[in-house]
Amino acid sequence: MRNVRITMSYDGTRYAGFQVQPGVSSVQGKLLEAIAAVTGGETVSLHGSGRTDAGVHARAQVANFLTASRLPIDRWCRALNANLPDDIVVWEAVEASETFHARKSAKRKTYCYTINANRYPDPMVRHMELHHPGPLNIEAMSEAIRAYVGEHDFTSFCSTRAMNESKVRTVLEAALLTDPVPGMERSPGRGRIRLFFTGNGFLYNMVRIMTGTLIEVGEGKRQPAEIGEVLAARNRMLAGPTAKAHGLSLWDVHYDQ
Amino acid sequence: MRNVRITMSYDGTRYAGFQVQPGVSSVQGKLLEAIAAVTGGETVSLHGSGRTDAGVHARAQVANFLTASRLPIDRWCRALNANLPDDIVVWEAVEASETFHARKSAKRKTYCYTINANRYPDPMVRHMELHHPGPLNIEAMSEAIRAYVGEHDFTSFCSTRAMNESKVRTVLEAALLTDPVPGMERSPGRGRIRLFFTGNGFLYNMVRIMTGTLIEVGEGKRQPAEIGEVLAARNRMLAGPTAKAHGLSLWDVHYDQ
Repeated sequence: MRNVRITMSYDGTRYAGFQVQPGVSSVQGKLLEAIAAVTGGETVSLHGSGRTDAGVHARAQVANFLTASRLPIDRWCRALNANLPDDIVVWEAVEASETFHARKSAKRKTYCYTINANRYPDPMVRHMELHHPGPLNIEAMSEAIRAYVGEHDFTSFCSTRAMNESKVRTVLEAALLTDPVPGMERSPGRGRIRLFFTGNGFLYNMVRIMTGTLIEVGEGKRQPAEIGEVLAARNRMLAGPTAKAHGLSLWDVHYDQ
Repeated sequence: MRNVRITMSYDGTRYAGFQVQPGVSSVQGKLLEAIAAVTGGETVSLHGSGRTDAGVHARAQVANFLTASRLPIDRWCRALNANLPDDIVVWEAVEASETFHARKSAKRKTYCYTINANRYPDPMVRHMELHHPGPLNIEAMSEAIRAYVGEHDFTSFCSTRAMNESKVRTVLEAALLTDPVPGMERSPGRGRIRLFFTGNGFLYNMVRIMTGTLIEVGEGKRQPAEIGEVLAARNRMLAGPTAKAHGLSLWDVHYDQ
Protein backbone atom coordinates (compact mmCIF):
# COMPACT_ATOMS: atom_id res chain seq x y z
CA MET A 1 0.00 0.00 0.00
CA ARG A 2 1.19 3.49 -0.83
CA ASN A 3 0.38 6.60 1.16
CA VAL A 4 -0.56 9.31 -1.36
CA ARG A 5 -0.57 12.94 -0.24
CA ILE A 6 -2.53 15.36 -2.41
CA THR A 7 -2.82 19.16 -2.34
CA MET A 8 -5.87 20.76 -3.88
CA SER A 9 -7.66 24.05 -4.47
CA TYR A 10 -11.41 24.29 -4.47
CA ASP A 11 -14.17 26.78 -4.91
CA GLY A 12 -16.39 25.79 -1.98
CA THR A 13 -19.49 27.64 -3.25
CA ARG A 14 -21.37 24.53 -4.37
CA TYR A 15 -20.42 22.31 -1.44
CA ALA A 16 -21.82 21.62 2.02
CA GLY A 17 -18.19 21.67 3.18
CA PHE A 18 -15.15 19.45 2.90
CA GLN A 19 -16.47 16.51 4.88
CA VAL A 20 -18.76 13.80 3.53
CA GLN A 21 -22.26 14.13 4.92
CA PRO A 22 -25.33 12.15 3.91
CA GLY A 23 -27.52 13.62 1.18
CA VAL A 24 -25.36 16.61 0.28
CA SER A 25 -22.46 17.34 -2.04
CA SER A 26 -19.02 17.55 -0.38
CA VAL A 27 -15.45 18.00 -1.55
CA GLN A 28 -14.40 14.78 0.18
CA GLY A 29 -17.25 12.94 -1.54
CA LYS A 30 -16.11 14.18 -4.96
CA LEU A 31 -12.51 13.14 -4.17
CA LEU A 32 -13.61 9.67 -3.07
CA GLU A 33 -15.56 9.24 -6.32
CA ALA A 34 -12.54 10.37 -8.34
CA ILE A 35 -10.19 8.02 -6.47
CA ALA A 36 -12.61 5.13 -7.05
CA ALA A 37 -12.73 5.99 -10.76
CA VAL A 38 -8.93 6.16 -11.04
CA THR A 39 -8.29 2.94 -9.11
CA GLY A 40 -11.08 0.95 -10.69
CA GLY A 41 -13.28 0.91 -7.64
CA GLU A 42 -11.05 1.17 -4.59
CA THR A 43 -12.75 2.58 -1.47
CA VAL A 44 -10.11 4.45 0.49
CA SER A 45 -10.08 6.34 3.78
CA LEU A 46 -9.35 9.91 2.84
CA HIS A 47 -7.98 12.12 5.62
CA GLY A 48 -8.18 15.88 5.08
CA SER A 49 -6.03 18.30 7.11
CA GLY A 50 -9.31 19.47 8.59
CA ARG A 51 -12.87 20.30 7.68
CA THR A 52 -13.87 23.45 5.91
CA ASP A 53 -17.44 24.68 6.37
CA ALA A 54 -20.09 25.04 3.67
CA GLY A 55 -19.06 27.79 1.23
CA VAL A 56 -15.46 28.01 2.53
CA HIS A 57 -12.74 27.70 -0.12
CA ALA A 58 -9.26 26.24 -0.15
CA ARG A 59 -6.19 27.42 -1.96
CA ALA A 60 -4.14 24.52 -0.57
CA GLN A 61 -6.06 21.84 1.30
CA VAL A 62 -4.02 18.68 1.98
CA ALA A 63 -5.33 15.12 2.24
CA ASN A 64 -3.87 11.60 2.22
CA PHE A 65 -5.06 8.08 1.55
CA LEU A 66 -3.62 4.57 1.35
CA THR A 67 -4.01 2.84 -1.98
CA ALA A 68 -3.10 -0.46 -3.60
CA SER A 69 -3.09 1.25 -7.02
CA ARG A 70 0.15 1.02 -8.98
CA LEU A 71 -0.55 4.19 -10.94
CA PRO A 72 2.78 6.09 -11.07
CA ILE A 73 2.73 9.02 -8.63
CA ASP A 74 3.29 11.61 -11.36
CA ARG A 75 0.05 10.53 -13.07
CA TRP A 76 -2.26 11.02 -10.09
CA CYS A 77 -2.99 14.76 -10.48
CA ARG A 78 -4.08 14.45 -14.07
CA ALA A 79 -6.03 11.24 -13.43
CA LEU A 80 -7.92 12.70 -10.46
CA ASN A 81 -8.64 16.01 -12.20
CA ALA A 82 -10.09 14.13 -15.18
CA ASN A 83 -12.65 12.69 -12.74
CA LEU A 84 -13.33 15.83 -10.69
CA PRO A 85 -15.68 18.75 -11.39
CA ASP A 86 -13.94 21.94 -12.49
CA ASP A 87 -14.33 23.61 -9.09
CA ILE A 88 -11.90 21.14 -7.46
CA VAL A 89 -8.32 20.91 -8.76
CA VAL A 90 -5.61 18.61 -7.37
CA TRP A 91 -2.29 20.30 -8.13
CA GLU A 92 0.18 18.15 -6.23
CA ALA A 93 0.38 14.41 -5.53
CA VAL A 94 3.40 12.92 -3.80
CA GLU A 95 4.15 9.62 -2.12
CA ALA A 96 4.32 10.25 1.62
CA SER A 97 5.97 8.20 4.36
CA GLU A 98 3.68 5.59 5.90
CA THR A 99 3.37 7.64 9.10
CA PHE A 100 2.11 10.79 7.30
CA HIS A 101 -1.46 11.76 8.24
CA ALA A 102 -2.87 15.00 6.77
CA ARG A 103 -4.60 15.99 10.00
CA LYS A 104 -2.41 14.52 12.73
CA SER A 105 0.89 15.51 11.08
CA ALA A 106 -0.15 19.13 10.40
CA LYS A 107 2.04 21.56 12.35
CA ARG A 108 0.28 24.78 11.46
CA LYS A 109 -2.34 26.16 9.14
CA THR A 110 -2.93 29.51 7.50
CA TYR A 111 -6.36 30.90 6.69
CA CYS A 112 -7.14 34.00 4.67
CA TYR A 113 -10.32 36.04 5.05
CA THR A 114 -11.03 38.59 2.30
CA ILE A 115 -13.18 41.69 2.81
CA ASN A 116 -14.12 44.07 0.02
CA ALA A 117 -14.80 47.44 1.65
CA ASN A 118 -15.65 49.26 -1.54
CA ARG A 119 -19.12 50.75 -1.77
CA TYR A 120 -20.17 48.18 -4.34
CA PRO A 121 -19.30 44.47 -4.61
CA ASP A 122 -16.95 43.09 -7.25
CA PRO A 123 -19.01 40.67 -9.37
CA MET A 124 -15.92 38.73 -10.52
CA VAL A 125 -15.15 37.45 -7.04
CA ARG A 126 -18.55 37.79 -5.38
CA HIS A 127 -18.35 34.21 -4.06
CA MET A 128 -14.79 34.71 -2.75
CA GLU A 129 -14.99 37.75 -0.50
CA LEU A 130 -17.28 39.43 1.99
CA HIS A 131 -18.65 42.71 0.71
CA HIS A 132 -18.74 45.33 3.48
CA PRO A 133 -20.36 48.44 1.97
CA GLY A 134 -19.28 50.80 4.74
CA PRO A 135 -15.69 52.07 5.04
CA LEU A 136 -13.52 50.37 7.65
CA ASN A 137 -10.90 51.84 9.96
CA ILE A 138 -7.99 49.79 8.64
CA GLU A 139 -5.46 51.21 11.11
CA ALA A 140 -7.62 50.17 14.05
CA MET A 141 -8.11 46.68 12.55
CA SER A 142 -4.35 46.34 11.97
CA GLU A 143 -3.73 47.19 15.61
CA ALA A 144 -6.48 44.89 16.87
CA ILE A 145 -5.43 41.84 14.85
CA ARG A 146 -2.10 41.71 16.71
CA ALA A 147 -3.92 40.96 19.96
CA TYR A 148 -4.80 37.49 18.66
CA VAL A 149 -1.14 36.47 18.39
CA GLY A 150 0.11 34.13 21.11
CA GLU A 151 -1.20 31.26 23.19
CA HIS A 152 -4.68 32.04 24.44
CA ASP A 153 -7.85 30.36 25.57
CA PHE A 154 -10.07 31.10 22.56
CA THR A 155 -13.40 30.14 24.21
CA SER A 156 -14.78 33.60 23.31
CA PHE A 157 -13.90 33.00 19.66
CA CYS A 158 -15.31 29.52 19.32
CA SER A 159 -18.76 28.30 18.36
CA THR A 160 -20.66 27.13 21.42
CA ARG A 161 -21.33 23.96 19.41
CA ALA A 162 -17.63 23.00 19.50
CA MET A 163 -16.83 19.81 21.40
CA ASN A 164 -13.13 20.40 22.09
CA GLU A 165 -12.06 19.91 25.70
CA SER A 166 -9.30 22.50 25.55
CA LYS A 167 -9.91 25.83 23.89
CA VAL A 168 -6.26 26.84 24.17
CA ARG A 169 -4.62 27.45 20.80
CA THR A 170 -1.58 29.39 19.60
CA VAL A 171 -1.93 31.97 16.86
CA LEU A 172 1.59 32.27 15.46
CA GLU A 173 0.96 35.10 13.03
CA ALA A 174 -1.93 37.43 12.28
CA ALA A 175 -1.66 40.14 9.66
CA LEU A 176 -3.84 42.52 7.69
CA LEU A 177 -2.84 43.27 4.11
CA THR A 178 -4.56 45.82 1.90
CA ASP A 179 -5.01 45.36 -1.80
CA PRO A 180 -6.85 48.28 -3.37
CA VAL A 181 -9.02 47.45 -6.34
CA PRO A 182 -7.36 49.35 -9.20
CA GLY A 183 -9.53 51.99 -10.81
CA MET A 184 -12.26 51.59 -8.25
CA GLU A 185 -12.62 53.45 -4.98
CA ARG A 186 -9.39 54.64 -3.45
CA SER A 187 -10.76 56.75 -0.62
CA PRO A 188 -9.76 56.00 3.00
CA GLY A 189 -11.32 52.88 4.46
CA ARG A 190 -12.03 51.46 1.02
CA GLY A 191 -10.38 48.71 -1.00
CA ARG A 192 -9.79 45.02 -0.45
CA ILE A 193 -8.51 43.75 2.90
CA ARG A 194 -7.01 40.33 3.50
CA LEU A 195 -6.70 38.95 7.01
CA PHE A 196 -4.16 36.13 7.41
CA PHE A 197 -4.13 33.91 10.48
CA THR A 198 -1.51 31.21 11.05
CA GLY A 199 -1.86 28.90 14.03
CA ASN A 200 -1.15 25.45 15.39
CA GLY A 201 -4.86 24.71 15.20
CA PHE A 202 -8.15 26.54 15.03
CA LEU A 203 -11.41 25.91 16.87
CA TYR A 204 -14.80 25.64 15.17
CA ASN A 205 -15.66 29.02 13.52
CA MET A 206 -12.63 30.61 15.24
CA VAL A 207 -11.31 32.46 12.18
CA ARG A 208 -14.78 33.66 11.25
CA ILE A 209 -15.48 34.96 14.80
CA MET A 210 -12.05 36.64 15.03
CA THR A 211 -12.87 38.28 11.67
CA GLY A 212 -16.39 39.31 12.71
CA THR A 213 -14.94 40.95 15.82
CA LEU A 214 -12.26 42.76 13.79
CA ILE A 215 -14.96 44.10 11.46
CA GLU A 216 -16.67 45.63 14.50
CA VAL A 217 -13.35 47.29 15.34
CA GLY A 218 -13.19 48.58 11.76
CA GLU A 219 -16.73 49.93 12.08
CA GLY A 220 -15.76 51.84 15.23
CA LYS A 221 -18.11 49.76 17.42
CA ARG A 222 -15.16 48.45 19.44
CA GLN A 223 -11.71 49.66 20.38
CA PRO A 224 -8.66 47.55 19.45
CA ALA A 225 -7.86 47.07 23.15
CA GLU A 226 -11.13 45.19 23.63
CA ILE A 227 -9.80 42.11 21.83
CA GLY A 228 -7.62 41.26 24.83
CA GLU A 229 -10.54 41.76 27.20
CA VAL A 230 -12.80 39.52 25.15
CA LEU A 231 -10.10 36.81 25.08
CA ALA A 232 -9.72 37.04 28.86
CA ALA A 233 -13.49 36.77 29.45
CA ARG A 234 -13.80 33.31 27.78
CA ASN A 235 -17.38 34.06 26.78
CA ARG A 236 -18.64 33.69 23.21
CA MET A 237 -21.33 36.30 23.88
CA LEU A 238 -18.71 39.04 24.19
CA ALA A 239 -17.09 38.51 20.77
CA GLY A 240 -18.50 39.74 17.45
CA PRO A 241 -20.65 37.80 14.98
CA THR A 242 -19.40 34.88 12.89
CA ALA A 243 -18.33 36.40 9.55
CA LYS A 244 -19.91 34.77 6.49
CA ALA A 245 -18.29 31.62 5.15
CA HIS A 246 -17.68 32.69 1.55
CA GLY A 247 -14.90 35.17 2.45
CA LEU A 248 -12.79 32.43 4.04
CA SER A 249 -10.13 30.30 2.37
CA LEU A 250 -7.81 27.65 3.79
CA TRP A 251 -4.57 29.15 2.50
CA ASP A 252 -1.87 26.65 3.43
CA VAL A 253 -1.07 23.67 5.67
CA HIS A 254 2.48 23.17 6.93
CA TYR A 255 4.16 19.86 7.79
CA ASP A 256 7.61 18.99 9.05
CA GLN A 257 7.86 16.01 6.73
CA MET B 1 -34.01 64.90 -20.01
CA ARG B 2 -30.81 64.02 -18.20
CA ASN B 3 -27.89 62.17 -19.73
CA VAL B 4 -26.79 59.55 -17.18
CA ARG B 5 -23.37 57.93 -17.53
CA ILE B 6 -22.85 54.68 -15.68
CA THR B 7 -19.75 52.55 -15.14
CA MET B 8 -20.19 48.86 -14.37
CA SER B 9 -18.35 45.61 -13.76
CA TYR B 10 -19.76 42.31 -14.92
CA ASP B 11 -18.98 38.65 -14.93
CA GLY B 12 -19.83 37.80 -18.54
CA THR B 13 -20.00 34.03 -17.99
CA ARG B 14 -23.81 33.76 -18.14
CA TYR B 15 -24.35 36.24 -20.98
CA ALA B 16 -24.43 36.05 -24.76
CA GLY B 17 -22.45 39.31 -24.70
CA PHE B 18 -23.12 42.94 -23.87
CA GLN B 19 -25.54 43.67 -26.67
CA VAL B 20 -29.23 42.83 -26.65
CA GLN B 21 -30.02 39.96 -28.99
CA PRO B 22 -33.34 38.19 -29.39
CA GLY B 23 -33.90 35.08 -27.29
CA VAL B 24 -30.73 35.24 -25.21
CA SER B 25 -29.59 36.88 -22.00
CA SER B 26 -27.43 40.00 -22.42
CA VAL B 27 -25.88 42.58 -20.10
CA GLN B 28 -27.62 45.40 -21.98
CA GLY B 29 -30.94 43.59 -21.63
CA LYS B 30 -30.49 43.29 -17.86
CA LEU B 31 -29.57 46.99 -17.64
CA LEU B 32 -32.63 48.01 -19.66
CA GLU B 33 -34.85 45.97 -17.35
CA ALA B 34 -33.25 47.57 -14.29
CA ILE B 35 -33.65 51.09 -15.73
CA ALA B 36 -37.30 50.37 -16.50
CA ALA B 37 -37.81 49.15 -12.93
CA VAL B 38 -36.11 52.22 -11.44
CA THR B 39 -37.97 54.73 -13.65
CA GLY B 40 -41.35 53.08 -13.41
CA GLY B 41 -41.34 51.80 -16.97
CA GLU B 42 -39.21 54.13 -19.05
CA THR B 43 -37.76 52.58 -22.21
CA VAL B 44 -34.41 54.23 -22.84
CA SER B 45 -31.76 53.95 -25.54
CA LEU B 46 -28.71 52.59 -23.75
CA HIS B 47 -25.38 53.18 -25.49
CA GLY B 48 -22.46 51.03 -24.34
CA SER B 49 -18.86 52.03 -25.09
CA GLY B 50 -18.78 48.95 -27.30
CA ARG B 51 -19.90 45.35 -27.42
CA THR B 52 -18.24 42.61 -25.50
CA ASP B 53 -18.57 39.05 -26.83
CA ALA B 54 -20.24 36.14 -25.09
CA GLY B 55 -18.25 35.16 -22.00
CA VAL B 56 -16.13 38.34 -22.01
CA HIS B 57 -16.07 40.29 -18.74
CA ALA B 58 -15.82 43.97 -17.87
CA ARG B 59 -14.07 45.64 -15.00
CA ALA B 60 -15.22 49.07 -16.19
CA GLN B 61 -17.72 49.15 -19.03
CA VAL B 62 -19.30 52.58 -19.61
CA ALA B 63 -22.78 53.30 -20.94
CA ASN B 64 -25.13 56.27 -21.12
CA PHE B 65 -28.84 56.91 -21.54
CA LEU B 66 -31.25 59.83 -21.55
CA THR B 67 -33.94 59.73 -18.91
CA ALA B 68 -36.84 61.86 -17.73
CA SER B 69 -36.51 60.36 -14.25
CA ARG B 70 -35.95 62.83 -11.43
CA LEU B 71 -34.18 60.30 -9.22
CA PRO B 72 -31.17 62.14 -7.69
CA ILE B 73 -27.97 61.12 -9.42
CA ASP B 74 -26.40 59.77 -6.22
CA ARG B 75 -29.24 57.24 -5.88
CA TRP B 76 -28.86 55.60 -9.28
CA CYS B 77 -26.14 53.05 -8.43
CA ARG B 78 -28.01 51.60 -5.52
CA ALA B 79 -31.35 51.67 -7.34
CA LEU B 80 -29.98 49.91 -10.42
CA ASN B 81 -28.04 47.33 -8.40
CA ALA B 82 -31.19 46.48 -6.46
CA ASN B 83 -32.73 45.49 -9.81
CA LEU B 84 -29.71 43.74 -11.34
CA PRO B 85 -28.49 40.16 -10.90
CA ASP B 86 -25.37 39.82 -8.72
CA ASP B 87 -23.04 39.32 -11.70
CA ILE B 88 -23.58 42.92 -12.90
CA VAL B 89 -22.65 45.81 -10.58
CA VAL B 90 -22.99 49.50 -11.45
CA TRP B 91 -20.41 51.34 -9.37
CA GLU B 92 -20.56 54.85 -10.75
CA ALA B 93 -23.41 57.01 -12.04
CA VAL B 94 -22.83 60.63 -12.97
CA GLU B 95 -24.77 63.23 -14.91
CA ALA B 96 -22.98 63.77 -18.22
CA SER B 97 -23.14 66.70 -20.62
CA GLU B 98 -25.83 66.35 -23.27
CA THR B 99 -23.20 65.66 -25.94
CA PHE B 100 -21.66 62.70 -24.10
CA HIS B 101 -22.06 59.36 -25.92
CA ALA B 102 -20.39 56.28 -24.39
CA ARG B 103 -19.27 54.92 -27.77
CA LYS B 104 -18.69 58.03 -29.88
CA SER B 105 -16.97 60.03 -27.11
CA ALA B 106 -14.58 57.21 -26.14
CA LYS B 107 -10.97 58.22 -26.77
CA ARG B 108 -9.29 54.97 -25.91
CA LYS B 109 -9.97 51.61 -24.32
CA THR B 110 -7.91 49.14 -22.35
CA TYR B 111 -8.47 45.38 -22.44
CA CYS B 112 -6.82 42.80 -20.21
CA TYR B 113 -6.35 39.17 -21.20
CA THR B 114 -5.34 36.79 -18.39
CA ILE B 115 -3.49 33.52 -18.97
CA ASN B 116 -2.76 31.01 -16.21
CA ALA B 117 0.33 29.07 -17.31
CA ASN B 118 0.47 26.82 -14.26
CA ARG B 119 0.20 23.11 -14.90
CA TYR B 120 -3.26 23.02 -13.32
CA PRO B 121 -6.12 25.54 -13.50
CA ASP B 122 -7.12 27.73 -10.54
CA PRO B 123 -10.71 26.78 -9.69
CA MET B 124 -11.41 30.15 -8.00
CA VAL B 125 -11.05 32.10 -11.24
CA ARG B 126 -11.69 29.36 -13.80
CA HIS B 127 -14.22 31.57 -15.64
CA MET B 128 -11.86 34.58 -15.62
CA GLU B 129 -8.64 33.32 -17.20
CA LEU B 130 -7.40 31.01 -19.93
CA HIS B 131 -5.61 27.97 -18.56
CA HIS B 132 -2.56 27.11 -20.66
CA PRO B 133 -1.10 23.90 -19.19
CA GLY B 134 2.24 24.18 -20.97
CA PRO B 135 4.94 26.63 -19.87
CA LEU B 136 5.26 29.83 -21.92
CA ASN B 137 8.36 31.75 -22.95
CA ILE B 138 7.44 34.96 -21.19
CA GLU B 139 10.51 36.88 -22.40
CA ALA B 140 9.63 36.12 -26.04
CA MET B 141 6.01 37.15 -25.45
CA SER B 142 7.13 40.41 -23.78
CA GLU B 143 9.28 41.19 -26.80
CA ALA B 144 6.56 40.24 -29.28
CA ILE B 145 3.77 42.28 -27.66
CA ARG B 146 5.69 45.51 -28.33
CA ALA B 147 5.30 44.96 -32.09
CA TYR B 148 1.58 45.69 -31.82
CA VAL B 149 2.19 49.25 -30.59
CA GLY B 150 1.64 51.98 -33.16
CA GLU B 151 -0.70 52.71 -36.05
CA HIS B 152 -1.13 49.58 -38.18
CA ASP B 153 -3.56 47.97 -40.56
CA PHE B 154 -4.85 45.15 -38.31
CA THR B 155 -6.57 43.11 -41.08
CA SER B 156 -4.51 40.05 -40.03
CA PHE B 157 -5.80 40.42 -36.47
CA CYS B 158 -9.45 40.89 -37.26
CA SER B 159 -12.26 38.40 -37.70
CA THR B 160 -13.09 37.96 -41.39
CA ARG B 161 -16.69 38.58 -40.30
CA ALA B 162 -15.89 42.20 -39.39
CA MET B 163 -17.64 44.84 -41.49
CA ASN B 164 -15.34 47.81 -40.85
CA GLU B 165 -14.17 49.63 -43.95
CA SER B 166 -10.84 50.66 -42.47
CA LYS B 167 -8.80 48.15 -40.49
CA VAL B 168 -6.31 50.80 -39.39
CA ARG B 169 -6.15 51.24 -35.63
CA THR B 170 -3.59 52.63 -33.20
CA VAL B 171 -2.43 50.53 -30.27
CA LEU B 172 -1.13 53.09 -27.79
CA GLU B 173 0.23 50.69 -25.19
CA ALA B 174 0.72 46.94 -25.00
CA ALA B 175 2.30 45.33 -21.96
CA LEU B 176 2.75 41.93 -20.37
CA LEU B 177 2.69 41.73 -16.58
CA THR B 178 3.39 38.59 -14.58
CA ASP B 179 1.65 37.76 -11.36
CA PRO B 180 2.85 34.47 -9.92
CA VAL B 181 0.29 32.46 -8.02
CA PRO B 182 1.67 32.37 -4.46
CA GLY B 183 2.48 28.91 -3.18
CA MET B 184 1.80 27.27 -6.49
CA GLU B 185 4.23 26.66 -9.32
CA ARG B 186 7.12 29.10 -9.48
CA SER B 187 9.20 27.45 -12.17
CA PRO B 188 10.13 29.36 -15.36
CA GLY B 189 7.28 29.85 -17.80
CA ARG B 190 4.69 29.28 -15.08
CA GLY B 191 2.44 31.67 -13.22
CA ARG B 192 -0.25 34.13 -14.21
CA ILE B 193 0.28 36.46 -17.17
CA ARG B 194 -1.79 39.55 -17.89
CA LEU B 195 -1.71 41.15 -21.32
CA PHE B 196 -2.88 44.79 -21.41
CA PHE B 197 -3.78 46.50 -24.68
CA THR B 198 -4.75 50.17 -24.90
CA GLY B 199 -5.91 51.57 -28.22
CA ASN B 200 -8.10 54.16 -29.88
CA GLY B 201 -10.35 51.36 -31.06
CA PHE B 202 -10.28 47.62 -31.58
CA LEU B 203 -11.62 45.52 -34.44
CA TYR B 204 -13.83 42.47 -33.99
CA ASN B 205 -11.87 39.77 -32.10
CA MET B 206 -8.68 41.85 -32.43
CA VAL B 207 -7.51 41.47 -28.82
CA ARG B 208 -8.27 37.75 -28.83
CA ILE B 209 -6.36 37.17 -32.09
CA MET B 210 -3.40 39.28 -30.91
CA THR B 211 -3.43 37.14 -27.75
CA GLY B 212 -3.72 33.84 -29.63
CA THR B 213 -0.72 34.84 -31.74
CA LEU B 214 1.30 35.83 -28.65
CA ILE B 215 0.54 32.43 -27.10
CA GLU B 216 2.07 30.79 -30.18
CA VAL B 217 5.17 32.94 -29.60
CA GLY B 218 5.19 31.76 -25.97
CA GLU B 219 4.94 28.16 -27.14
CA GLY B 220 7.94 28.62 -29.42
CA LYS B 221 5.87 28.08 -32.56
CA ARG B 222 6.65 31.61 -33.75
CA GLN B 223 9.46 34.11 -33.30
CA PRO B 224 8.69 37.58 -31.87
CA ALA B 225 9.81 39.17 -35.16
CA GLU B 226 6.96 37.42 -37.00
CA ILE B 227 4.36 39.76 -35.47
CA GLY B 228 5.54 42.59 -37.74
CA GLU B 229 5.46 40.31 -40.77
CA VAL B 230 1.93 39.13 -39.98
CA LEU B 231 0.78 42.75 -39.60
CA ALA B 232 2.33 43.67 -42.97
CA ALA B 233 0.68 40.71 -44.74
CA ARG B 234 -2.89 41.86 -43.95
CA ASN B 235 -4.12 38.28 -44.00
CA ARG B 236 -6.10 36.73 -41.16
CA MET B 237 -4.83 33.25 -42.15
CA LEU B 238 -1.29 34.17 -41.07
CA ALA B 239 -2.14 35.15 -37.47
CA GLY B 240 -2.76 32.73 -34.62
CA PRO B 241 -6.09 31.43 -33.37
CA THR B 242 -8.70 33.54 -31.59
CA ALA B 243 -8.03 33.05 -27.86
CA LYS B 244 -11.06 31.95 -25.84
CA ALA B 245 -13.46 34.65 -24.66
CA HIS B 246 -13.43 33.93 -20.93
CA GLY B 247 -9.85 35.23 -20.41
CA LEU B 248 -10.76 38.69 -21.73
CA SER B 249 -11.96 41.68 -19.74
CA LEU B 250 -12.75 45.24 -20.80
CA TRP B 251 -10.51 46.99 -18.30
CA ASP B 252 -11.16 50.69 -18.78
CA VAL B 253 -12.64 53.27 -21.17
CA HIS B 254 -11.14 56.76 -21.30
CA TYR B 255 -12.95 59.99 -22.19
CA ASP B 256 -11.82 63.59 -22.42
CA GLN B 257 -14.97 64.84 -20.75
